[in-house]
Amino acid sequence: MIAENFGVNCAAATPVGADGAPRLDLFAAHCKALLNEGCHGVALLGTTGEANNFAVSERKALLEAALKAGVRGDQLLPGTSSCNVPETIELTRHAVDHGARACVLLPPFYYKGVSDEGLFHFYASVIEVVADDRLRVILYHIPQVTQVPISHELIARLRDAFPGIVAGIKDSAGDIANMTAMIERFPGFAVLAGADPLLLPLLQAGGAGCITATSNLRSDALRVIWDNWSDPEAADKVTAAQDRINGWRTLTNAYVQLPTVKAMLAKARGDADWRNLRAPLVKLTDEETNAVWAEMDRLNA
Amino acid sequence: MIAENFGVNCAAATPVGADGAPRLDLFAAHCKALLNEGCHGVALLGTTGEANNFAVSERKALLEAALKAGVRGDQLLPGTSSCNVPETIELTRHAVDHGARACVLLPPFYYKGVSDEGLFHFYASVIEVVADDRLRVILYHIPQVTQVPISHELIARLRDAFPGIVAGIKDSAGDIANMTAMIERFPGFAVLAGADPLLLPLLQAGGAGCITATSNLRSDALRVIWDNWSDPEAADKVTAAQDRINGWRTLTNAYVQLPTVKAMLAKARGDADWRNLRAPLVKLTDEETNAVWAEMDRLNA
Repeated sequence: MIAENFGVNCAAATPVGADGAPRLDLFAAHCKALLNEGCHGVALLGTTGEANNFAVSERKALLEAALKAGVRGDQLLPGTSSCNVPETIELTRHAVDHGARACVLLPPFYYKGVSDEGLFHFYASVIEVVADDRLRVILYHIPQVTQVPISHELIARLRDAFPGIVAGIKDSAGDIANMTAMIERFPGFAVLAGADPLLLPLLQAGGAGCITATSNLRSDALRVIWDNWSDPEAADKVTAAQDRINGWRTLTNAYVQLPTVKAMLAKARGDADWRNLRAPLVKLTDEETNAVWAEMDRLNA
Repeated sequence: MIAENFGVNCAAATPVGADGAPRLDLFAAHCKALLNEGCHGVALLGTTGEANNFAVSERKALLEAALKAGVRGDQLLPGTSSCNVPETIELTRHAVDHGARACVLLPPFYYKGVSDEGLFHFYASVIEVVADDRLRVILYHIPQVTQVPISHELIARLRDAFPGIVAGIKDSAGDIANMTAMIERFPGFAVLAGADPLLLPLLQAGGAGCITATSNLRSDALRVIWDNWSDPEAADKVTAAQDRINGWRTLTNAYVQLPTVKAMLAKARGDADWRNLRAPLVKLTDEETNAVWAEMDRLNA
């Protein structure tokens, strides 16, 4: 059994106006640009997309805005989790009904130290009530944020209960050993890197692609890796692309990552509203923004 | 400036049926019973109340069910936070419009390491948009769960910006030194203990009451402490009451606390549905439940 290839997917940032309202126009244009720049898909409303800073109705409106602008449903991998089952069902059903390729599902993240039994019930409740053969679930492992890891035992149990539906995992913990262990243990399970520097080693280990933040800015380099990684004659090109993406990734960590990515998008997309974030996140100062922009010029030189 | 007295408030548990739907009837009866048993108020939809396991619409329905059953708005201190500003505004406005005495506001808890600046903007956005002189905010400090502490600097800034509105804090971190430091630094600020064993020492230090889980079961003992703590001749009675509540509190930690509290409520209220929880929480096994019930009999003997 071969895991489905998901390719290069962008953990798309979500633009908001100075008043905090989603800029649907800017978001739709960003999604279309990402696909033109090399992304296979747009993983909207993840951690970089500030999903949990938005209300359920706003999250639906953002997905619909991308579709209205001409993005196809099978190019979208929205995050559709909330801490509670009913709103996760509502968002997941909405995404499936709009043709989303897959839904990226965080575990509920308020309570800590919860059991695999409880997490299984959370995911099972959502899958059973959505009750749609089109549903594909990508689990989302980002324990440094959620403090709620996705264990291999939980994955095994979910795959047994919902074969074909529980299709893969986004692993943002940054540990290639965990990713390769899942590839080895779970045939046909799509393991996606959440960290840009791990795309090449993950593909070499049998991974299915990536969902990353830096692809908001440099999906072209990630796409070079994806298209050429298995061609021995392209080794230099692939290494250069991974080096390039790593440089941009390093810049996104110059300050707090999300505000930095958005400051970079303000320059790349030419709209100052990209600098804004929803509370509790805070935008970079003008001075920080100018420093990041200068570094972008250097990387592009 | 004297802090408002909030007295003994119950972090009320929320009953659900076997299907996970809120049992509004059972919840309203529980609220009324708590007030009869000695609580000054019901702090519904906190951590013990599984607030984040419920959708916005369900949270509103639970508050309304208590009111319909005859509980007064000024007896309610609902948790009205969500990770995002618009839903927190919606829940907070709903509570104010229904006459709630105060709203208990968690910080947004998805992102970790957020700045006080970002948390200030979260709370300020909610208070400014609700824009209602009746609003009273009780901040909610429970860093062992949220991983997002409420700093004294943040409290100072919020009190300066919204005097009279930012009325107090529920401190569930269990550190009496933090509570006394806030009492000393912030005149008129109501500091409420989130842990039952700290009610007496907190009152002796100038605190304003408590919001606790064990009061679902033993608010009578907490009320004895509240009514008598400053009377030197009642010292033995007060100490006995604190010992009694501590014994019950210890039992709530026999297994995972929330499922244990709910198992205890199944016996105390005589309805087996009380044992149920929403995912990702899992109810006690029959064996565990029987062990807890036997210990309740022993404590009541």
